[in-house]
Amino acid sequence: MSTLLHDLRTIVGEAHVLLAPPGDGDALAGYERDWRKRYHGRSLCVVRPGDAGEVAAVVRRCAREPGVSIVAQGGNTGLVGGGVPDASGRQVLLSTKRLRAVRRIDVDNQTLTVEAGLTLQEVQAAAAAAGLLFPLSLAAEGSCTIGGNLSTNAGGTQVLRFGNARELCLGLEAVTASGELWSDLQGLRKDNTGYDLRDLLIGSEGTLGVITAATLRLFPQPRAGVTAWASCRRLRDAVALMRRLRADFDAELVGYEAMNAASLALVERHFPALRAPLPTAAGAPGWSVLVELASAHAAPALRERAESALAAALEAGEAVDIAVAGNEQQARTLWQLREGIPLAQAAEGLNIKHDVGLPLSALADFVDAADAALEAVAPGARHITFGHLGDGNLHYNLQAPPGADAAGFLAAHEQAVNDCVYELVARFGGTFSAEHGIGRLKRGELAARKPAAAVAMMRAIKTALDPQGLFNPGVLLPD
Amino acid sequence: MSTLLHDLRTIVGEAHVLLAPPGDGDALAGYERDWRKRYHGRSLCVVRPGDAGEVAAVVRRCAREPGVSIVAQGGNTGLVGGGVPDASGRQVLLSTKRLRAVRRIDVDNQTLTVEAGLTLQEVQAAAAAAGLLFPLSLAAEGSCTIGGNLSTNAGGTQVLRFGNARELCLGLEAVTASGELWSDLQGLRKDNTGYDLRDLLIGSEGTLGVITAATLRLFPQPRAGVTAWASCRRLRDAVALMRRLRADFDAELVGYEAMNAASLALVERHFPALRAPLPTAAGAPGWSVLVELASAHAAPALRERAESALAAALEAGEAVDIAVAGNEQQARTLWQLREGIPLAQAAEGLNIKHDVGLPLSALADFVDAADAALEAVAPGARHITFGHLGDGNLHYNLQAPPGADAAGFLAAHEQAVNDCVYELVARFGGTFSAEHGIGRLKRGELAARKPAAAVAMMRAIKTALDPQGLFNPGVLLPD
Repeated sequence: MSTLLHDLRTIVGEAHVLLAPPGDGDALAGYERDWRKRYHGRSLCVVRPGDAGEVAAVVRRCAREPGVSIVAQGGNTGLVGGGVPDASGRQVLLSTKRLRAVRRIDVDNQTLTVEAGLTLQEVQAAAAAAGLLFPLSLAAEGSCTIGGNLSTNAGGTQVLRFGNARELCLGLEAVTASGELWSDLQGLRKDNTGYDLRDLLIGSEGTLGVITAATLRLFPQPRAGVTAWASCRRLRDAVALMRRLRADFDAELVGYEAMNAASLALVERHFPALRAPLPTAAGAPGWSVLVELASAHAAPALRERAESALAAALEAGEAVDIAVAGNEQQARTLWQLREGIPLAQAAEGLNIKHDVGLPLSALADFVDAADAALEAVAPGARHITFGHLGDGNLHYNLQAPPGADAAGFLAAHEQAVNDCVYELVARFGGTFSAEHGIGRLKRGELAARKPAAAVAMMRAIKTALDPQGLFNPGVLLPD
Repeated sequence: MSTLLHDLRTIVGEAHVLLAPPGDGDALAGYERDWRKRYHGRSLCVVRPGDAGEVAAVVRRCAREPGVSIVAQGGNTGLVGGGVPDASGRQVLLSTKRLRAVRRIDVDNQTLTVEAGLTLQEVQAAAAAAGLLFPLSLAAEGSCTIGGNLSTNAGGTQVLRFGNARELCLGLEAVTASGELWSDLQGLRKDNTGYDLRDLLIGSEGTLGVITAATLRLFPQPRAGVTAWASCRRLRDAVALMRRLRADFDAELVGYEAMNAASLALVERHFPALRAPLPTAAGAPGWSVLVELASAHAAPALRERAESALAAALEAGEAVDIAVAGNEQQARTLWQLREGIPLAQAAEGLNIKHDVGLPLSALADFVDAADAALEAVAPGARHITFGHLGDGNLHYNLQAPPGADAAGFLAAHEQAVNDCVYELVARFGGTFSAEHGIGRLKRGELAARKPAAAVAMMRAIKTALDPQGLFNPGVLLPD
């Protein structure tokens, strides 16, 4: 083992192999504990290679060490524990944070090639500096890395228009389990020469390879934007409004977020400076919708069209009230209301989270059914339901009843609530993990709910590409 | 063997197991010979299952027969020989053409679930009947099947806006090599529960599974369209014009095709009724560009914006002349000019085809370099260069010198021309198969030009998912 550490130091340099000082198990907590603090492992060491060649050398060296495996980690902002080591002390935590080069920006090709350790915000900034847009956008963008975004196929608030991380990536560079560096960074929009290895690695949560760089697809910066808020009586009205806006705006509709009344009440409670621009629809469940439009056109035309489409939605009864942001500051406030929900939930205390995806046509029925069923399973719980309605992706979360002990609520109800929610998700043709992935948290769900034929193919692929189980064992695949 | 035939007849019905009558090897030519007539195999029999369950039963039965493999075939319009049997007489040709159900159209979810044997045109029509758009569009749409489109990740003329077949598919149903039916037809826009098996099967050319159905992504029907023609002096001007239009129209720019002067001359020669709307730019290589815009807006605004953007392009020197179609008929004629090129090439005689993809930033330099280099390799050959410029995908074809014997030209020059073109493609960071795939035709190129690490991963995946080599041996992967 001391030979392993010696060799790793030789590869990456003394300063970049980190060990917990004896007696101080928490010095590496930033690496070993996940962001939600649900998992706290212990690594053999943390290794921080400085370039892709060093990553490959680290992988080759670890592969020779019996019983040692590798957990790759970017910004450590994942929500399912996929990027932290287990408790064995036999996992090398490979941090990609020193892979920080912007390798190339190609304005004519509208592509950007970056290394895995840049934060999402830095990637956005590199695109913006060239007058272009990298549209992936999510709450953790200041600290999550682009390598992590790709390993987990991150989603966020503009998937409706631009797709997940997967759709924004034209090519990868990655180290395979045999320690080879595979590179596909040409920036081609079309390349039908064999199996789609890129998409296989994307979303594989570090179990098939270590992503070291990526070539990303860029877009023109929009010239106008409109942010609007609509108050709807029922979720199905919000779905109808979405359909209207798709027909009227097509790809100019870039974001469509929905929030139930309880979500906004929680935000207003914890962030008194934030107030929803419209009252919740009276005498109805009451849903608020945040609409984001962006266009290559000049601003006045887009705003006029938005106002006219929303007026038509009012007339059709899809919305009962609307507000269009009058300036940047107002638009930002509307987004802060939406983004405040998870923060308000955290401030309110432990809660039971779900990240479900459903066909848009089944979304409202699912929520009705789940709300009703959970009254028996977790009586009095507050249903904090919000998310990326345009993608059929809701964060269907449960908060303890007002005044109840949150930890006790979680311990008492989590399993039964999950079972109930995931049963209903399956019945309505949905998924138990729309954007957060599997990690360590949802392996059981995957084993129980993914079709056996799919799990068999996944296992076969894992064994084929990583026969000794070097990459992230205990994550994604069931035992 | 007679037991195998008996069992297959039991599964699919007597009428749907086809054998060549003794002494008449050509009765099955429509199945056994590829569309370009470069490959003519001999099948053990043609089997036409009527539903996915029958496909699975056929696969299981064939798997039990030593030495027998399966070639799945849709419309048999592929260009690389990936859907026809080899000469062994030991391959069962599984035709998907009887899998013809439109299983579900979900307007709220904007999805369409169809079986593999529908033609692309039928799929487009099913979407249109619901007031929605399925945007995949290519020359063979009247006869190619959606299953084949997905197996080969087909491209076409609207990839710029909507992506390849891959991007238009939300889920598959497929039969695995173990004869299991795997289904993922829920129509979810986001589902991060494990490896991306869908994208692995898409583009795998029947070597990993038999696609029996798919759930496809639909879009709103555009409310306005503009078709325009621009005459550019040089290819790099056409690239600059494209960049301008992307910035001005973003996703409203749905198609951007380029044609060199020799391409149009060939069309005008073989289709005298068709005339390019503008003369080729004088004193320059001379490229023509076909621009297709589509918008959710009303028509007058789009046309005004198009005219103003094209006028700005004239001023900037990116184009020397422009013409905007005044009506549907004129727009159709412009597209006929573009679509006439491959037909005119066929009428002119055998030719050497390439389907190359390059970064947009390297496209013009590549064409300059290849045109120059080929003067030595195939002197006097006509360079018929055209294609999906917006995607960086050119059909870089060579026609024999005027009056020369086409077959002799092909025989004498094909290998050297291919070597020269593909060397240059690689040097400029491109691919030797942007949309047509590998099939039987380009396996050698794949072996020679794809990085060894990628080929190793592909082989490992093939062995893992199809250990006995049941599906389409001799296609895609090198021996």
